[in-house]
Amino acid sequence: MPEWRKDPIVDRWVIIATERGKRPMDYKEIIEEKKSQDCPLCEGSEMKTPPEIIAYREPGTARDTPGWWVRVVPNKFPALQIEGEAVQQHRGVYDYMNGVGAHEVIVESNSHISGMNMQSDKQVEEIIWIWRDRSLDLRKDTRLKYIQIFKNYGSAGGASLEHTHSQLIATPLVPADIKQEIKGMKDYANRYGSCVMCDMLRQERAEQDRLVIEGNHFMSFSPFASRFPFETWIVPKEHQYDFAQIREAQVKDLASVMKRTLSKLSHMIKNVPYNMVLHSSPVNMQNETHFHWHLEIMPRLTLMAGFELGTGYFINPTPPEIAAQALRETEEVYPIRDEYMKEVRHYV
Amino acid sequence: MPEWRKDPIVDRWVIIATERGKRPMDYKEIIEEKKSQDCPLCEGSEMKTPPEIIAYREPGTARDTPGWWVRVVPNKFPALQIEGEAVQQHRGVYDYMNGVGAHEVIVESNSHISGMNMQSDKQVEEIIWIWRDRSLDLRKDTRLKYIQIFKNYGSAGGASLEHTHSQLIATPLVPADIKQEIKGMKDYANRYGSCVMCDMLRQERAEQDRLVIEGNHFMSFSPFASRFPFETWIVPKEHQYDFAQIREAQVKDLASVMKRTLSKLSHMIKNVPYNMVLHSSPVNMQNETHFHWHLEIMPRLTLMAGFELGTGYFINPTPPEIAAQALRETEEVYPIRDEYMKEVRHYV
Repeated sequence: MPEWRKDPIVDRWVIIATERGKRPMDYKEIIEEKKSQDCPLCEGSEMKTPPEIIAYREPGTARDTPGWWVRVVPNKFPALQIEGEAVQQHRGVYDYMNGVGAHEVIVESNSHISGMNMQSDKQVEEIIWIWRDRSLDLRKDTRLKYIQIFKNYGSAGGASLEHTHSQLIATPLVPADIKQEIKGMKDYANRYGSCVMCDMLRQERAEQDRLVIEGNHFMSFSPFASRFPFETWIVPKEHQYDFAQIREAQVKDLASVMKRTLSKLSHMIKNVPYNMVLHSSPVNMQNETHFHWHLEIMPRLTLMAGFELGTGYFINPTPPEIAAQALRETEEVYPIRDEYMKEVRHYV
Repeated sequence: MPEWRKDPIVDRWVIIATERGKRPMDYKEIIEEKKSQDCPLCEGSEMKTPPEIIAYREPGTARDTPGWWVRVVPNKFPALQIEGEAVQQHRGVYDYMNGVGAHEVIVESNSHISGMNMQSDKQVEEIIWIWRDRSLDLRKDTRLKYIQIFKNYGSAGGASLEHTHSQLIATPLVPADIKQEIKGMKDYANRYGSCVMCDMLRQERAEQDRLVIEGNHFMSFSPFASRFPFETWIVPKEHQYDFAQIREAQVKDLASVMKRTLSKLSHMIKNVPYNMVLHSSPVNMQNETHFHWHLEIMPRLTLMAGFELGTGYFINPTPPEIAAQALRETEEVYPIRDEYMKEVRHYV
């Protein structure tokens, strides 16, 4: 059984994941990247994953068989487990709790492709819809307080499988970084009577120099205090605290802005590894209506080393104004589109 | 001129380091590791670094010439600059400030060796003394509020030079992580009337299962909520808020405990990359006497990916009890000691 453990000094919880149980010896072997012939995420390999939680699939096809175009399964090596109580205990100065939570894999294509820029717009919309479906379903479990959706791309981004996928970890705690964001947004609203993210969008539109793409409903830009070279945020132009409030017109626009942004990134620096995280309001708590949900894309071109790990501050060698200009000037390229792009079937 | 920039939502400052000014093209080239023949940190290559700030050297030898055994120079590509005002400004929602601060390199040996475990105990003591000297000297500059000493080891640890060295970045701000630690330590003291770190040491000694080495003045152990596999902290047994308060007997013991801990780590997992950070009380402010200074060693065997970057929480696949046991059972090995270990000259 894994455990949640709290650092006794700061508000930092750690999952001690005994199910992944790495021993010292395990680190000496290099894990080779999986090849497509034994990829557990490809259509036809459904039995290589735990039983599916949900899939958008053709009518008449059975669970865990071919016929799907987006599919969600439990992580085979989950960091958290869904069973058990989420009750904090302590021994001396140390607090801990059962490793309760959910850890799921969203398979973003039935073909062995690696990136969102190889997908049709319609397929990217389907990915967003299934993110929303999982967010709405998981919050029925009142033990869960936060749903972290994220995507790791490339080995430097922490992806252990090449096949395009995102992940979801639902936690019985509101993470420290989210609490900080909520506090920052509330403090700003109390002081100025407006939303800091809405005000940022206004300023980005006025100053133009960090803007990457402006769609009808979403804006992508390099944040003023970018931690990473080419860090890019995608933010809804309308104030919305909960990602799951997203409407159909917004899904269409987000699919387009997200795909175009990632295409620019991947074309500018070939196959740049990145992490993309979706920050939304906590669930099963009083609504944090001051929150403004958004996506953060963090390319992994620099290492977080002693300074970053010691201080929580970052050194970024590329000013966001230069990053945004380079991204604006980069073509959107959709590699091997013809070869891989299948007709997208509709969710019925 | 570099710039400090504050994220408008959370208390997170970023150095926009224009002096390092990387453009998109710069990322496409892989930098090869420097070989010893053109190493700028070796004895005899003093002119390849900026002029030295301080060195422990033989009497009668001149600055920036051979004859030293520990040497401190400004970083050739500094993230911060010592000139200028540290005054916060703002434009719309964004706060920023001149990139004021200091960025120095501590060359830990005149020979081209890579690790602290290849040094004599006496030499490691000299490194600690020079860290203290720099900490005392830099705080004379009242603009500076925090002095972050750290060591990056191995390329996965962010070290771009193989020659053994540590670094120091002094900032006009108290970093977020340190503020969080101070707050955590103060809150605990207010609630329980004691120091949380002192209480942790007591509990670690009683429970034994996370203990690695106990010296006369320092203890090394795997913290209960370790973020990284084999994370190890080295903590003075006596309550001391400021690293620069360290006394001679403590320096001797710290040298021994630090070297033995790093030797165990490097022997257990050959040349494991790591970051080591020294957390101490801020300077030029009211003394934070509740603070308990310490060293954190973070081996870089896991990647920080979407979950960690999205939440500030960590997934650690190796329980600290297993890590500590493995470290206790690992021999301390001092590779190529005879070949490289020179007679250490005394600081006069």
